Amino acid sequence: MSLLEVMKTRRSIRKYSDKEVSEELLQSLLQAAARTQTMGNLQLYSVVVTRSEDMKERLAPAHFNQPMVRQAPVVLTICADFRRTSTWCKERKADPGYDNFLSFINAASDALLFTQTFSSLAEEAGLGLCYLGTTVYMPAKIIEVLNLPRLVMPVATLTVGWPDEQPALSDRLPVESFVHSEKYRDYTPLDIDRYYLEKEQLPQNKHFVEINHKETLAQIFTDIRYTRRDNEALSTTFLDALRQQGFLEG
Amino acid sequence: MSLLEVMKTRRSIRKYSDKEVSEELLQSLLQAAARTQTMGNLQLYSVVVTRSEDMKERLAPAHFNQPMVRQAPVVLTICADFRRTSTWCKERKADPGYDNFLSFINAASDALLFTQTFSSLAEEAGLGLCYLGTTVYMPAKIIEVLNLPRLVMPVATLTVGWPDEQPALSDRLPVESFVHSEKYRDYTPLDIDRYYLEKEQLPQNKHFVEINHKETLAQIFTDIRYTRRDNEALSTTFLDALRQQGFLEG
Repeated sequence: MSLLEVMKTRRSIRKYSDKEVSEELLQSLLQAAARTQTMGNLQLYSVVVTRSEDMKERLAPAHFNQPMVRQAPVVLTICADFRRTSTWCKERKADPGYDNFLSFINAASDALLFTQTFSSLAEEAGLGLCYLGTTVYMPAKIIEVLNLPRLVMPVATLTVGWPDEQPALSDRLPVESFVHSEKYRDYTPLDIDRYYLEKEQLPQNKHFVEINHKETLAQIFTDIRYTRRDNEALSTTFLDALRQQGFLEG
Repeated sequence: MSLLEVMKTRRSIRKYSDKEVSEELLQSLLQAAARTQTMGNLQLYSVVVTRSEDMKERLAPAHFNQPMVRQAPVVLTICADFRRTSTWCKERKADPGYDNFLSFINAASDALLFTQTFSSLAEEAGLGLCYLGTTVYMPAKIIEVLNLPRLVMPVATLTVGWPDEQPALSDRLPVESFVHSEKYRDYTPLDIDRYYLEKEQLPQNKHFVEINHKETLAQIFTDIRYTRRDNEALSTTFLDALRQQGFLEG
């Protein structure tokens, strides 16, 4: 099946069957994903594969104990990695200048592009995945558990297994809401009404607003899911971890 | 053809034929790419499509005048975007708290994952792409040309067209060099020798070292392509642009 067909029906999968994800399949997907474009062909990423029960148990709290971490046969932590490249430089009489913010952005970009090619390949192979956004909330904990050295920063986590559920497809905004021709055209109140109508009218979203005693769906995001207070605290946490990993020196 | 087959032979394409990239194809790929996982299903990205000669001309300097920008029929600038979501919140009696660093990381992640699904879909459809890493070097210029408002930050650019070249496949590190089992295993000098051998032995790389009067390939990166001095200066530039776009307030 083509990726175009896969994308039309893909959904995040949070429940996995007992079927093993073979090391052979995993390695072949990781290898194919590594053909993704990368800065200067340096491949500024690394992947830590978690299969052991013990390590899943230790990783789970860093992901707010979301059950997928313990239940998935494989957990992948994808890291922005300038360590391997910098070690190479030092071994080759070259002075690596990659302990700065731009280098983190470069490596994080490489890592996320790689992550998404891997996701597409894995879903094409029939695997089910869940992307854990929590990776950037408690990086220090992940760094500790996975023993990540200087110039290695976790940026994404995927739980991987064979699907044992088929949840409903989630909604998406109409394409015209996020595509701009030639210049960015700012959003009018009328645009907002039109683009968010479908999302706001979905029965499950209306239900969610009701049981949380909110007035609007947007308040679910600002007051409960992604609050200013949390975002500001987590910004500090993330910057502290970046500093700890040596990416804010230059 | 499956994505797995596509990945085995993909390469970045910098020369494009005169054949048009139809708006219909472009829209269908953007729509399919929007099924990529996204934080809270908020789709924290936007895409500015550049087709006009005039706008390509204005964008080109922000990308160090790399010829692909002027030559490609389509240039896509993908942005981390919390503006649409924040405008929605304000229109719905909700107080958006997304003017902080973590929110930029969240939106940039969304944008890069979307970018890479789009890339995979486009390459599967036979299009040729080049990812311009220069986007994060001169964001202020891109912001000005594309009229990007507050809480919109460019993170990736793709030049898109039908291929008019078939460059050699570039090398990649062996999969064991970037995959770690259970814990990060730091690199020994022996590991480095083994993993970088192929790259260092490639005739074009040896030639490159020679004509630049360098001792090692790594010095090409540290002394010429990605120097400490440039990285440090560009770190400041990038952080200034992030501040200008309102992502460092909280």
